[in-house]
Amino acid sequence: MSVDGALTHLEKRFTRLMQLENVSFILDWDTAVMMPPGSAHSRAEVTAALRELSHERLTDPAVGAWLEEAESMPSEDPWAAANLRAMRHRWVHATAVPSDLVAALARMESLCEIRWRDALSVADFTQVARSFSDLLQLVQQVGQAKGERLRCLTYEALLDQYEPGIRIDRLDALFAELEEDFLPTLLDAALTRQKHRNRPRLPAGPFPLEMQRQLGSQFLAALGFNFQHGRLDMSHHPFCGGTCDDVRITARYDTADFTSSLMGILHETGHALYELGLPRAWRWQPVGRACSTSLHESQALLIEMQAGRSREFLTYAAPLLRAAFRSNDPAWDAEDLYCHYTWVEPSCIRVSADEVTYLAHVIIRYQLEHSLITGQLSVADLPAAWGEAMTRLLCVTPPNDRLGCLQDIHWYTGAFGYFPSYILGAMIAAQLFDAACRADTTILPGLTSGDFTPLLTWLRSHVHAHGSFFLSADDLLRAATGTPLDAALFKAHLMRRYIGQ
Amino acid sequence: MSVDGALTHLEKRFTRLMQLENVSFILDWDTAVMMPPGSAHSRAEVTAALRELSHERLTDPAVGAWLEEAESMPSEDPWAAANLRAMRHRWVHATAVPSDLVAALARMESLCEIRWRDALSVADFTQVARSFSDLLQLVQQVGQAKGERLRCLTYEALLDQYEPGIRIDRLDALFAELEEDFLPTLLDAALTRQKHRNRPRLPAGPFPLEMQRQLGSQFLAALGFNFQHGRLDMSHHPFCGGTCDDVRITARYDTADFTSSLMGILHETGHALYELGLPRAWRWQPVGRACSTSLHESQALLIEMQAGRSREFLTYAAPLLRAAFRSNDPAWDAEDLYCHYTWVEPSCIRVSADEVTYLAHVIIRYQLEHSLITGQLSVADLPAAWGEAMTRLLCVTPPNDRLGCLQDIHWYTGAFGYFPSYILGAMIAAQLFDAACRADTTILPGLTSGDFTPLLTWLRSHVHAHGSFFLSADDLLRAATGTPLDAALFKAHLMRRYIGQ
Repeated sequence: MSVDGALTHLEKRFTRLMQLENVSFILDWDTAVMMPPGSAHSRAEVTAALRELSHERLTDPAVGAWLEEAESMPSEDPWAAANLRAMRHRWVHATAVPSDLVAALARMESLCEIRWRDALSVADFTQVARSFSDLLQLVQQVGQAKGERLRCLTYEALLDQYEPGIRIDRLDALFAELEEDFLPTLLDAALTRQKHRNRPRLPAGPFPLEMQRQLGSQFLAALGFNFQHGRLDMSHHPFCGGTCDDVRITARYDTADFTSSLMGILHETGHALYELGLPRAWRWQPVGRACSTSLHESQALLIEMQAGRSREFLTYAAPLLRAAFRSNDPAWDAEDLYCHYTWVEPSCIRVSADEVTYLAHVIIRYQLEHSLITGQLSVADLPAAWGEAMTRLLCVTPPNDRLGCLQDIHWYTGAFGYFPSYILGAMIAAQLFDAACRADTTILPGLTSGDFTPLLTWLRSHVHAHGSFFLSADDLLRAATGTPLDAALFKAHLMRRYIGQ
Repeated sequence: MSVDGALTHLEKRFTRLMQLENVSFILDWDTAVMMPPGSAHSRAEVTAALRELSHERLTDPAVGAWLEEAESMPSEDPWAAANLRAMRHRWVHATAVPSDLVAALARMESLCEIRWRDALSVADFTQVARSFSDLLQLVQQVGQAKGERLRCLTYEALLDQYEPGIRIDRLDALFAELEEDFLPTLLDAALTRQKHRNRPRLPAGPFPLEMQRQLGSQFLAALGFNFQHGRLDMSHHPFCGGTCDDVRITARYDTADFTSSLMGILHETGHALYELGLPRAWRWQPVGRACSTSLHESQALLIEMQAGRSREFLTYAAPLLRAAFRSNDPAWDAEDLYCHYTWVEPSCIRVSADEVTYLAHVIIRYQLEHSLITGQLSVADLPAAWGEAMTRLLCVTPPNDRLGCLQDIHWYTGAFGYFPSYILGAMIAAQLFDAACRADTTILPGLTSGDFTPLLTWLRSHVHAHGSFFLSADDLLRAATGTPLDAALFKAHLMRRYIGQ
């Protein structure tokens, strides 16, 4: 077979696989947003069948042969070469794990998610502990199989699913320095500084759900989201996914407080803009997908944290909020909103945490999930370990499991190794936003006037359009900013914003 | 391989295939109800890929070998035997057609549907004519391939997809007698009888969409639909589908007139109750699916026409309608509603036609689609032929294509051979309703008081629970009523209701 023939076969097969991945996403979206509750078990079976089918198509021995053949004579087209590398990454992960384990994992992920919802509603971890334990065992098996294949540790293999090539040593070094040195100092200084201020009063609610939804749509559209190619819906746990033809965002609303849903929507908008900006011509190939999970999170955090919590953006947003809720309350002042959105206060819930204490939340999850995977921490001891870590890092103790180890969906759907992406993403966001604002000085003033075109234009060409052309977030950062992943600019940003240095 | 082994392989493979079919349905539902418009072309590709994949899995040579092996020693379990027969029917249809034709057809069906929506919005058939012509060619190729395999005519092979074993001769005989003799006489007599009456005034609107939706949900629930296992949504063309775990109904609402949406919902409720009542243990096997399309339509028409337009049901419904729309209008009288719902008046649109002229609509479609498939009628001549047939049978001439040949979605999504099911279904509905009311005399009084349990109980045990256990609608009818498919009771019903004989 010719190299061209092998590449053609591969592209055809991966087109199918990526289309099946799209079907899986639509099905997952449906499960979270639309499905009648009585169908949950049946849907779990169907989802598992689809995953197993994809896995079979990807691990078909022909694919391995085509990969070797195509790699034996590298393509002159750098995109085709990058695509081939991205194909191999997926193929290695898939072939490391037998089909029946893939199906068992998919089924258990769905079932554990169902149990998790029940446990969450009664704030009792023991209700999900058994399913979670079963799921964890399967995840460990998957991680072990992949680790042997990738010649790395079990947890490292799980990390590699989200962040190709990342090593535990590097994460440990990054996070230890944050945890032991930077974060306590920053938190202390920020809290001390706040002592001299009054906590800003939030405008009085209630904030009707439908108005929050409309407002969310308005911000989405202003930021460049095209409703011809996407939707905004409600779900218990906000998420975003799809392809550049059809990106779907979900949000959750609290009628007593619009502030968290607004930031939630901005976060998912960042994800969505990335999806919408991925290279259209490659949308059914691996190279046309996101470079890594941390890069995806960086796009969300760039919009939510770097842009969305800036004085500039809130100056633009304040009058829109006031108009949407038809209020004359003086608390709708931009400066008050800025104070609110940058107020530092340790609390139990990650997704509503401020930008500073958020780091502690993620570090705790990173350490706990690492221990769960290695077996150092048992499932039964998780609630206690969670409480202990929260007390140690943030001096708050969750009064129940809903505000503790049940709050995030990730683990209960089998997503181990994902959490570090949030901190890496925050660092990348700081690096990219800094480079963008330096490259185009109209970006920051644009935020004030609601002109997001300069920012989006820079992101489109320096990040989104590259898909998975670069091997890693490091390489993309080097090309976009001149520097690989580094915590310095992120730290500088936090110190500037929170202690005025 | 042992017979047991072959059967186990088959059941496993068909479980997957039926799950993929479920995925396709959810995707189609999403396309009609949820998908952002800009994703239509992309969705067409994905849908085609899924259909092609299913086709490949079903036509895999192993399946043919398993079928022969399993058939060589018939199972003693009659359900397993019926399942095997249903598998073979699907396998014969699938293996008759090459995979690339299946994919081309799926793609063209989606694309033609998109063009049809555009053409419908401007009421101009020429806008869709070219796509429709391309689609028709593919359908002809499919019909030809299947006809050669089934040793029958091209159109007959298309009919066989919906109504296994039905022959054109039988349809021709049934429909010719209706068209030439029964229908003109009945129509004439009904119109003459109406001359002495005033057309009942409809209650004054508007009828807010949300209230109609709530009312629809209320009737759905009363009839036995379980929202734990289903949804009611809106779409351009109402439909129903799913499995017993998750049945989805769509409706369309007209704020100026609640009467058609109400009957539309009752129609889809009939479909839904059938789906919900199919044998749960076999829900991922062919024998667990509907027996035939005419039987499916019979369940819809039994609820809509036999029960829903009865004096008994409307006596129950009238006060609910009055309460829902908070009206004191005297036109909400049950007898007025009965007069309205049994008022005969030739008009252009099938789905809003009365029960008598409805027959003419379907006969026209049957004759025209037959001529399109044989090539006797060209695509370009369709609008004129449509107008001519409507004038001949109903003395109305559609003023434009929207009220003419563009009104139904079927052909533009490749569904040729489906229309006859509506008349066969109406006949079956009459036979089943008659048998049910004779077997349980509480059924009719139950309609008056809103107690639908007796009717549903009879349908569950005599129709729904059988799935595809019987070879054909004829066999099921024989078991349930003692008589095969026959027009006599249907005609008697029409004469009783419309000319009081």
